Amino acid sequence: MTRPGKSVSSGRAGSTRRQFLLGGAVAGVGAAAAIGADLAVSSTDGPAAEPAALHGGQTVQFYGAHQAGIDTAAQAHGLFVALDLLDGTTREDLVRMMRILTDDAARLTQGSPALADSEPELATVPARLTVTFGFGPRFVARARGEAPGWLKALPAFAVDRLLPEFSDGDLLLQIAADDPLAVAHTARMLLKDTRSFASVRWSQQGFRRAHGSVRPGTTMRNLFGQVDGTSNPAPDTPDFDQVVWNRDGWLAGGTSAVVRRIGMDLDKWDRLDRGGREQSVGRYLSNGAPLTGTDEFDEPDFEATTPIGFPVIPEFSHVRRARSENTAERIFRRGYNYDDRPIGEAVSLSGLIFVSFQADVDRQFVPIQKRLDQLDLLNEWTVPIGSAVFAIPPGCAEGGFVGETLLT
Amino acid sequence: MTRPGKSVSSGRAGSTRRQFLLGGAVAGVGAAAAIGADLAVSSTDGPAAEPAALHGGQTVQFYGAHQAGIDTAAQAHGLFVALDLLDGTTREDLVRMMRILTDDAARLTQGSPALADSEPELATVPARLTVTFGFGPRFVARARGEAPGWLKALPAFAVDRLLPEFSDGDLLLQIAADDPLAVAHTARMLLKDTRSFASVRWSQQGFRRAHGSVRPGTTMRNLFGQVDGTSNPAPDTPDFDQVVWNRDGWLAGGTSAVVRRIGMDLDKWDRLDRGGREQSVGRYLSNGAPLTGTDEFDEPDFEATTPIGFPVIPEFSHVRRARSENTAERIFRRGYNYDDRPIGEAVSLSGLIFVSFQADVDRQFVPIQKRLDQLDLLNEWTVPIGSAVFAIPPGCAEGGFVGETLLT
Ligand code: HEM
Ligand code: HEM
Repeated sequence: MTRPGKSVSSGRAGSTRRQFLLGGAVAGVGAAAAIGADLAVSSTDGPAAEPAALHGGQTVQFYGAHQAGIDTAAQAHGLFVALDLLDGTTREDLVRMMRILTDDAARLTQGSPALADSEPELATVPARLTVTFGFGPRFVARARGEAPGWLKALPAFAVDRLLPEFSDGDLLLQIAADDPLAVAHTARMLLKDTRSFASVRWSQQGFRRAHGSVRPGTTMRNLFGQVDGTSNPAPDTPDFDQVVWNRDGWLAGGTSAVVRRIGMDLDKWDRLDRGGREQSVGRYLSNGAPLTGTDEFDEPDFEATTPIGFPVIPEFSHVRRARSENTAERIFRRGYNYDDRPIGEAVSLSGLIFVSFQADVDRQFVPIQKRLDQLDLLNEWTVPIGSAVFAIPPGCAEGGFVGETLLT
Repeated sequence: MTRPGKSVSSGRAGSTRRQFLLGGAVAGVGAAAAIGADLAVSSTDGPAAEPAALHGGQTVQFYGAHQAGIDTAAQAHGLFVALDLLDGTTREDLVRMMRILTDDAARLTQGSPALADSEPELATVPARLTVTFGFGPRFVARARGEAPGWLKALPAFAVDRLLPEFSDGDLLLQIAADDPLAVAHTARMLLKDTRSFASVRWSQQGFRRAHGSVRPGTTMRNLFGQVDGTSNPAPDTPDFDQVVWNRDGWLAGGTSAVVRRIGMDLDKWDRLDRGGREQSVGRYLSNGAPLTGTDEFDEPDFEATTPIGFPVIPEFSHVRRARSENTAERIFRRGYNYDDRPIGEAVSLSGLIFVSFQADVDRQFVPIQKRLDQLDLLNEWTVPIGSAVFAIPPGCAEGGFVGETLLT
């Protein structure tokens, strides 16, 4: 029951099947569910275009050792919904709920309608849809399971200005796809099925570049214009497996997610000159190369000094502070931009839905966040306004359900 | 100064230039601005993919007889922002503002940074970006121009439950692209430049299927799962020109936009069976064909009756009520889905950003809306919660600015 993490299959009945290289892994070969009416309908205006490789039919395998949506090359749209369990929801209810949600996700991710799908036509374009479930502390307690020590709110940090409406929660749904309609429909189907067990606590919608707009594997840019995600373990490497997958008890094959909503003050950032911006992070804006290199993936040289003896990459820069001497203190980042539209004088309410996966929050994430809290030039322009920690259970095989290692 | 409405050019320095058929028109040949760092940066993980046709570099011509974003095949993401002029903003200020905004839009839509762009790297992937400007009644009054008779709030309709936070406004920005980052960056650049003249009154974000996920020209689906947009004049036909372009005074070559936010009660809709849903509109859910036909583009036969004598397409169905005997009463619809994420018990807050363009609101739009207000089965599940009317000035040639026919 191994799930080839980023295998993607592009199948359209009757069309040439193309293999895509997405995130470096060779594409799988399973055929996606036949694309329904949306594709069958002919064009309104004029002759049909040359048959391009349509990505709407691409699917990411659902069943497997790990849940999808972690080592999957990040999709263009990500929706994060946290739910609170209703008071009366019992352990048996949790089993029931997770069975239903697993079934929904298994179908929808493969381009098939959910059971009793009220808009089955909206389910036909999965566009690499993944659904990833996470459990908060109260979920594990209600399941009468043993919670890992780190499954609690993060320690308080001086930089935090946390709002309850973006923090904590008992159950996380991470719904991601390259098509916004697939995300919307999936959210609705899942939330209809959680209704009798839980209510929505918060919900955050994020985006990256559209599928096919830039070369696959291009590192995303955040709304500061920075290349964001360069120094990150690469899925399907021993390094990634080491950083991400947990090995203990019911969480073996799972991981943890830290979801932090971090406001980015674009107005203040815009008043800073280009040199200052590059110093604050330690990398060039143009292509993300370290200030000591020329290519995005050059290793930063923290020892290099200027002719007058200052470090080329400032000691207080974000990349310097974020990197530990201790190689155990590493995380896998997979965040999304958000951009709310304020009314009135303000021009933007923007930021990052920071999402990191790591085997152990306390050992890997917290030390980094502590160092950044103490000192990080970037803090001048960023402020965490939401924070939540979830245990991400392993995947399951067909017939099983996500959470079964905790709940059975 | 004719702008070939839907001409799209895909240009990447050094790559084969591909011509796309989008919406039926043959692609134009202008080269897009060279794609910058996002494309230059190499992949994080593994060998680069086979060079696919990246759509991020595609551009829609900005200058021309008409503004872009009307006869342009609808992009995946649409942002609608309405601004109120500040009290002190004079006619001269309006000239200044529209010159600046025109310059911003002319650059950004071609994949170049705006003047003094604070995040120039975010401007390199236009993805068919268009910016369309519209003027509300107060804008035209402040410009001391002559307002067309229809440039005012629509008459009150019995179905309306309008909220001021989604209604009216002096200046409309319609920002649309196939990439959400292009939309976010453009909104920020434009709003920074309107800051000294106006403040944001409302803002609505909408989506359709992702670019390349389904065949170009596929009619969109709304969140009821309906094929929405079938019976619509096709850009670049005499019919379209007749319906859309105004011919009077400073508006010649322009048009009008009606922007209505219409809530769709998905919970109530889900309780209706499939037959009932299809009757309420008069078309099949599977492929949008009329109940009297088999193909989406079959003409509905309103005379056809069932064996026991009832009309096959109910008299109170949406399509029956929306179609007039009077062929002058036609509009061009170009709306977007919206999906806000409520917290608590509710599962979705969804609907349609209904957008229609027509030469004359009173003669074309109002009679349709009046009929639908009197009777339309769909009213059972929909409710207008926002409404605004704008005059859309014509396009301009290089060196000119949008609004010049009103302001000079
Ligand atoms: C809005 C807030 C943030 C922004 C804009 C931001 C931006 C960046 C950028 C531009 C880089 C350099 C490129 C890269 O390797 O990805 C980076 C690196 C990194 N960031 Fe952040 N970051 C933010 C918050 C955080 C937080 C909260 C953490 C963890 C607590 C974090 C951990 C890291 C790590 C571990 C690296 C890689 C350092 C290395 O080893 O080179 N970042 N970030
Ligand atoms: C949420 C609200 C609405 C929904 C869900 C909706 C949905 C639909 C659907 C599914 C169709 C049939 C397919 C097509 O031709 O596009 C249609 C047709 C149409 N609708 Fe709507 N509509 C809505 C509101 C409106 C409004 C407010 C107007 C104008 C006042 C309007 C005017 C039309 C027209 C003119 C047609 C084409 C009728 C024909 O000649 O066949 N619709 N609509």
